[in-house]
Amino acid sequence: MATKLWEKNFQVNAEIERFTVGRDREMDLYLAKYDVLGSMAHITMLQSIGLLERDELLQLLQALRHIYRSCEQGQFVIEEGVEDVHSQVELMLTRKLGDMGKKIHSGRSRNDQVLVDLKLFTRRQLLEITEGVKLLFDELVQKSDLYKDVLMPGYTHLQIAMPSSFGLWFGAYAESLADDMLFLQAAYRLTNRNPLGSAAGYGSSFPLDRTLTTQLLGFDSMDYNVVYAQMGRGKMERNVAFALASVAGTLAKLAFDACLFNSQNFGFVRLPKECTTGSSIMPHKKNPDVFELIRAKSNKLQGLPQQVMLIMNNLPTGYFRDLQVIKEIFLPAFDELKDCLRMTAYIINKMEVNEHILDNPMYDPMFSVEAVNRLAAAGMPFRDAYKQVGLDIEAGTFKADKHIHHTHEGSIGNLCNDRIRALMDSTLAEFHFDRVAAAEQALLNPPRP
Amino acid sequence: MATKLWEKNFQVNAEIERFTVGRDREMDLYLAKYDVLGSMAHITMLQSIGLLERDELLQLLQALRHIYRSCEQGQFVIEEGVEDVHSQVELMLTRKLGDMGKKIHSGRSRNDQVLVDLKLFTRRQLLEITEGVKLLFDELVQKSDLYKDVLMPGYTHLQIAMPSSFGLWFGAYAESLADDMLFLQAAYRLTNRNPLGSAAGYGSSFPLDRTLTTQLLGFDSMDYNVVYAQMGRGKMERNVAFALASVAGTLAKLAFDACLFNSQNFGFVRLPKECTTGSSIMPHKKNPDVFELIRAKSNKLQGLPQQVMLIMNNLPTGYFRDLQVIKEIFLPAFDELKDCLRMTAYIINKMEVNEHILDNPMYDPMFSVEAVNRLAAAGMPFRDAYKQVGLDIEAGTFKADKHIHHTHEGSIGNLCNDRIRALMDSTLAEFHFDRVAAAEQALLNPPRP
Amino acid sequence: MATKLWEKNFQVNAEIERFTVGRDREMDLYLAKYDVLGSMAHITMLQSIGLLERDELLQLLQALRHIYRSCEQGQFVIEEGVEDVHSQVELMLTRKLGDMGKKIHSGRSRNDQVLVDLKLFTRRQLLEITEGVKLLFDELVQKSDLYKDVLMPGYTHLQIAMPSSFGLWFGAYAESLADDMLFLQAAYRLTNRNPLGSAAGYGSSFPLDRTLTTQLLGFDSMDYNVVYAQMGRGKMERNVAFALASVAGTLAKLAFDACLFNSQNFGFVRLPKECTTGSSIMPHKKNPDVFELIRAKSNKLQGLPQQVMLIMNNLPTGYFRDLQVIKEIFLPAFDELKDCLRMTAYIINKMEVNEHILDNPMYDPMFSVEAVNRLAAAGMPFRDAYKQVGLDIEAGTFKADKHIHHTHEGSIGNLCNDRIRALMDSTLAEFHFDRVAAAEQALLNPPRP
Amino acid sequence: MATKLWEKNFQVNAEIERFTVGRDREMDLYLAKYDVLGSMAHITMLQSIGLLERDELLQLLQALRHIYRSCEQGQFVIEEGVEDVHSQVELMLTRKLGDMGKKIHSGRSRNDQVLVDLKLFTRRQLLEITEGVKLLFDELVQKSDLYKDVLMPGYTHLQIAMPSSFGLWFGAYAESLADDMLFLQAAYRLTNRNPLGSAAGYGSSFPLDRTLTTQLLGFDSMDYNVVYAQMGRGKMERNVAFALASVAGTLAKLAFDACLFNSQNFGFVRLPKECTTGSSIMPHKKNPDVFELIRAKSNKLQGLPQQVMLIMNNLPTGYFRDLQVIKEIFLPAFDELKDCLRMTAYIINKMEVNEHILDNPMYDPMFSVEAVNRLAAAGMPFRDAYKQVGLDIEAGTFKADKHIHHTHEGSIGNLCNDRIRALMDSTLAEFHFDRVAAAEQALLNPPRP
Repeated sequence: MATKLWEKNFQVNAEIERFTVGRDREMDLYLAKYDVLGSMAHITMLQSIGLLERDELLQLLQALRHIYRSCEQGQFVIEEGVEDVHSQVELMLTRKLGDMGKKIHSGRSRNDQVLVDLKLFTRRQLLEITEGVKLLFDELVQKSDLYKDVLMPGYTHLQIAMPSSFGLWFGAYAESLADDMLFLQAAYRLTNRNPLGSAAGYGSSFPLDRTLTTQLLGFDSMDYNVVYAQMGRGKMERNVAFALASVAGTLAKLAFDACLFNSQNFGFVRLPKECTTGSSIMPHKKNPDVFELIRAKSNKLQGLPQQVMLIMNNLPTGYFRDLQVIKEIFLPAFDELKDCLRMTAYIINKMEVNEHILDNPMYDPMFSVEAVNRLAAAGMPFRDAYKQVGLDIEAGTFKADKHIHHTHEGSIGNLCNDRIRALMDSTLAEFHFDRVAAAEQALLNPPRP
Repeated sequence: MATKLWEKNFQVNAEIERFTVGRDREMDLYLAKYDVLGSMAHITMLQSIGLLERDELLQLLQALRHIYRSCEQGQFVIEEGVEDVHSQVELMLTRKLGDMGKKIHSGRSRNDQVLVDLKLFTRRQLLEITEGVKLLFDELVQKSDLYKDVLMPGYTHLQIAMPSSFGLWFGAYAESLADDMLFLQAAYRLTNRNPLGSAAGYGSSFPLDRTLTTQLLGFDSMDYNVVYAQMGRGKMERNVAFALASVAGTLAKLAFDACLFNSQNFGFVRLPKECTTGSSIMPHKKNPDVFELIRAKSNKLQGLPQQVMLIMNNLPTGYFRDLQVIKEIFLPAFDELKDCLRMTAYIINKMEVNEHILDNPMYDPMFSVEAVNRLAAAGMPFRDAYKQVGLDIEAGTFKADKHIHHTHEGSIGNLCNDRIRALMDSTLAEFHFDRVAAAEQALLNPPRP
Repeated sequence: MATKLWEKNFQVNAEIERFTVGRDREMDLYLAKYDVLGSMAHITMLQSIGLLERDELLQLLQALRHIYRSCEQGQFVIEEGVEDVHSQVELMLTRKLGDMGKKIHSGRSRNDQVLVDLKLFTRRQLLEITEGVKLLFDELVQKSDLYKDVLMPGYTHLQIAMPSSFGLWFGAYAESLADDMLFLQAAYRLTNRNPLGSAAGYGSSFPLDRTLTTQLLGFDSMDYNVVYAQMGRGKMERNVAFALASVAGTLAKLAFDACLFNSQNFGFVRLPKECTTGSSIMPHKKNPDVFELIRAKSNKLQGLPQQVMLIMNNLPTGYFRDLQVIKEIFLPAFDELKDCLRMTAYIINKMEVNEHILDNPMYDPMFSVEAVNRLAAAGMPFRDAYKQVGLDIEAGTFKADKHIHHTHEGSIGNLCNDRIRALMDSTLAEFHFDRVAAAEQALLNPPRP
Repeated sequence: MATKLWEKNFQVNAEIERFTVGRDREMDLYLAKYDVLGSMAHITMLQSIGLLERDELLQLLQALRHIYRSCEQGQFVIEEGVEDVHSQVELMLTRKLGDMGKKIHSGRSRNDQVLVDLKLFTRRQLLEITEGVKLLFDELVQKSDLYKDVLMPGYTHLQIAMPSSFGLWFGAYAESLADDMLFLQAAYRLTNRNPLGSAAGYGSSFPLDRTLTTQLLGFDSMDYNVVYAQMGRGKMERNVAFALASVAGTLAKLAFDACLFNSQNFGFVRLPKECTTGSSIMPHKKNPDVFELIRAKSNKLQGLPQQVMLIMNNLPTGYFRDLQVIKEIFLPAFDELKDCLRMTAYIINKMEVNEHILDNPMYDPMFSVEAVNRLAAAGMPFRDAYKQVGLDIEAGTFKADKHIHHTHEGSIGNLCNDRIRALMDSTLAEFHFDRVAAAEQALLNPPRP
């Protein structure tokens, strides 16, 4: 029988503690570095408005830089009995500096801290996702260029329809990523705004200089309205999840195509041996496990926006503990997507295509449209040309002329990969990641006196 | 018993026809105007590459402009027995101009047409959504300015927590809309690219000039890769749905707040009488039906991305009839959201707030933090200040000083509405709707000879 | 620019009316018959507790039966200016019987009425879905029996893996439907409980006899607690949607398989000509449009539970107008699923399979496992047998022995279709649809005096 | 920059291994006990058909029982370098018994094993969920009985509407759980069928006795068709997730109500101190953190079906590695729900209600309907009674008579809790958990010789 929590000898409080903390300590490790950065900016600002002595500031900054480095080296831990990352950082500071360590919380609440942590963390993750997307994009464009002259069947309804090319196929996914970048950028702009200073969601009577912390942390601007700054929690996660889902959708589709084309019934591509599993008794069996996992993980990621919505929907304004649960599903999502991007880039880099697919006469009928066009161009009435080609196919006498002369923009003969590359580059240039890097470096590496 | 379709006397073909056409004719009415515009651009290009005589072009353009106007006047219908909008337009042209009417399809497939129709339709809808968002934004900012000095309780966990203001509350939703605009913009940029020329998804041997149709239709650029142009179907819908869901999320939350604050247990706001339903016997009962419907419709809209995903997910490259079903859920979504935006703007415009909420002593404890800060600022050790205020509250002797002096950016005393407005305006300026309008006008209103 | 609703000359009230009524009149037509049935039971009960004269009851019943028949004949309409089905029925009664017509509302609220309407409607729809499932089930079992000896390739990872059979393939989907029936049954039991008498969700002071209306309407039992009866709205829809999604999931998967197997790269099945679209120039192109639409519609239906959730989630106890919006997505779902079931049954009935697939030597390696087993059974050490067969395959000398002797339950040689049929029948028998039919008949066809 | 996996010095294979294994080892720990049980049944059957010696069987069974106990004691681990639970069990057997240990795999594939593991695990989890539901149900009924005479306001549209009672409120959630049990039962019946013997999804040539393993493992029946047995993976998870979502929906709604009623603006309930967090300076602030987390976790669980769908949708028949990812989201869901059930039961057990809410005259108008009814019953024309009460309320002279006399089934005065309890019990009785327990005991505790 299920145990009743209120029966004697049960450690009720320990159980409640376990339930309420949940996976929060584990999650807070994702945020540690960013918590430190946020505190550095906050106390720098506190000193500027006279709420901290210059000497205190310097000691605190040095101690925080030390903690930051321990985060980078993977040595930061949240100790047993310490509730969250904010408490852990404070504990480390007070151990070193005594009561002065508590001053990092002046004019802030925990809500405030977690908001800025989430923003700084997410901003960084979006940058890394962007890099992963670019890496895969480059591989796809390269393969598209390499195989621009290798034809493959083009399908509609999974029916053999028209000549296509591997150049088109690889290039299509590259362009898809260039479009996904638009949503990553919108997500980044939404994220890269400073919430710090909203306190518990209603501001405070401290004469905080939010413009200064905005500059120090390299934010584009701030979430001005403090009620909105708090309301942004959950919303940022949902909208960033939209952008991740867009990328994930592209990966899942690419993976599906590749798994299909890897079937012996198609045989269009050869996946790298180390990314398939086989069977010694059936040497031609090449299970595309890695691409299947990429597909599944990407499809799972596409469900992330809805999950965030289900948690945050129909909650009125103001903080609720519900938001803690979003961290569990949101924070690990970036690593999953980055992994999928890297694995896909690896497979694309190693993938080989079957340059002789079209030797199979099964694919000949897809050249019939061109044949009709050719006869028509040569003067035969369209209707007659059409009929004749149809009869030839039916009689099995149709000779497919596999020389394709498509010249318009984006067609087999004119892939426009340079313009797709330009599109990607121009969107990338709008992120201005350099500003963020400069601000973070300035905080972490102060000028020598 | 369920009827077996294959038993005699059953009109199998009629049933299959009914099933396959589904609501497609109804849906295609959304697209009619845009189908005409697409055709006008296409034939102008055809003439430029020598596939249409100048005289034919002029006759066809005139006839198409006529059809366009009938669409605008709500007179365009898809006749019984005609499959879709493309066939209907062709039928009208051939009735008027004979076989010449069929020439609008040279170098195009139906896939191609529906792709460009969807893009042109969606682009226009996004423009209108943007206008609706701006309208509501203006109302919210205005109310925020109007009530900037009226305090209200701020909650966390639905517990009375800190002083807030109606200025903050209205302003928060305005800023939320300014952020939603980022996703509308990403959606718009994704949408405003020319797919025309992709034929059945693999391009064609016609020497199409896609750059010309891109200019004629006022697209920012084109979906270059023709396989990607086709792959964009479903993807555009999903990603535009992300943007709509972002706006809808803001509306739903605002509506939830308003319905809660309209409860007699809060009594913070008065909704316009015409937007509530009542009961003559319970005169204080003001059911906020309109806001509840806004909430429900907005929550439904937040499910749109997932619906599109469920339909398009794990389909390999190339056209599938599945995509037709997306139209049923996607095309009507814009009208629903525009309706919600207009209704919300109306209610916000008419809404009144209760300027005397804080007379209720229930809310006094939320001024305790300020009281502590004041004592501390006056020199009392923080811990003692804290204790004293706590004791006063417990003893019922606590006197709330309701004068709030918050000065930092985004706080009660410094809403930064001008900067939020600037944020909104700068995002709006990046859409460049004027280019689209100019292009459409040029197509529809040719220079007098 | 978006029009402001509050600017002069705008018919604000008409707009609000349009917005709040929405598609409700259209939706209420689904409920009309059931609204009449509910009223018949209610007034019969009212008379039994002395709140209606026997003579009034008889007149009202007769008039209601008349309206019921007009519903059945498709003649019932909700007139312009009449808000909903309940008002329309009352209007028709008062036209005929004067103020007596209003008595059908004694001891009831509109909430109460719509609750019982939704239950009666949904109960009926579930019955029809069940019939549709059974019809398709029968076709699948029949095809499974017919093709029990026709082998086909069995895949894992879309890689050719093991011998399977069309008997197994068709039969698997039959068994899947038998399992879906479990959820239809749970949904039916949840649905088939009487909410009538809950008034506005908090009961009433009338001495209603809910046990009597439960019997009259053929409900299994009642939603006892009146707060729960109201809370059941939205919940019933979500849970019924679970059951529909289960069936839809089976259809979508079957459709996906069939579309794949219809590709020339597989060529396993021939779909009925009238359910495919083709191309005269590519005679082998058979686009499986009907199955693609079945798949898309079924996938859309799988999204229904989430849509209902997004609307109803995080609403506290008690009626909200939000629930109206659920009707728009819930009521039409049944017709869509019934259509998909019928179309699928038709195609399965007409589908032919390729009895000679395995002539293609590409599929030979899947017989290698059996070959190893045979050598091992004949005494060769397993490891050696394994190695030898592997070498034969690699050398191209492997001779596939395509005689399969699988005997265990559920295998190629022992499909157990009779037991699957028994499973389906036993679940069907638990619905007790007959009780419902008897009750409805008793209400509609009173014994002659 | 993102690191390229294929650049030198990168351990590609280790990375691929990390990616493909993912969290699988962690997940397999959930399944270990059940893997052992499945093997015990399988080898018992193998011996019965002559594929294992009696002596071998006894040795293997003893060793497996030993492993089972180590699982129960939490000592089972999957060692570094061992891929999954199946390999670990085999490894432990071969260490003890040499090559004999490998015989547990005769006539089985890994697919087969994971299918039966998932079924046995899920069956057990559903049993425990059922116990947790029953525990909470009992608390709710008890509180409903206890507070059956304590009135509270009933709301519609969050507007004060009609008298309700705490008896009704608690009882409504009890009845909701009784209905959720229907879906748990459907899920249980779907789950409690034996897939063992399906091999890689296409059966095998071994003369397996699946009826015997069905009996040994206490399954109700079997997934007959072997293709369906494999197809059931993903489907079972989705449909079980439906049932969990049903329960989770009830919990989330209850939690929302409680959090709302805990707001000072309502003040209807007092949550146990240990389940709220407060603020020493605002002694009346009682943040309902535990209920908020229950709500959030339950809302997350409601998203589970959609997540499973997104992963499995549009995959054709046959095993895919994608299914592995479902384990990550499915297996931990049960513990989350059980935790939520226990915590909710605890809070309900300790929750106190405010017996004096209705002293607040704000709630008086909700007695107006009864007042009208009383006047009408006393002979005053309804219209006049209605008018008079309305005028009294407006004039502030309305005296609410708070004696409620509701007598019909399920109303304030007649909660029918005994019948709701009977409903719950009768559904519970249909599970037949005892059969499962008996079968598992027979496997684990063989009769003494």
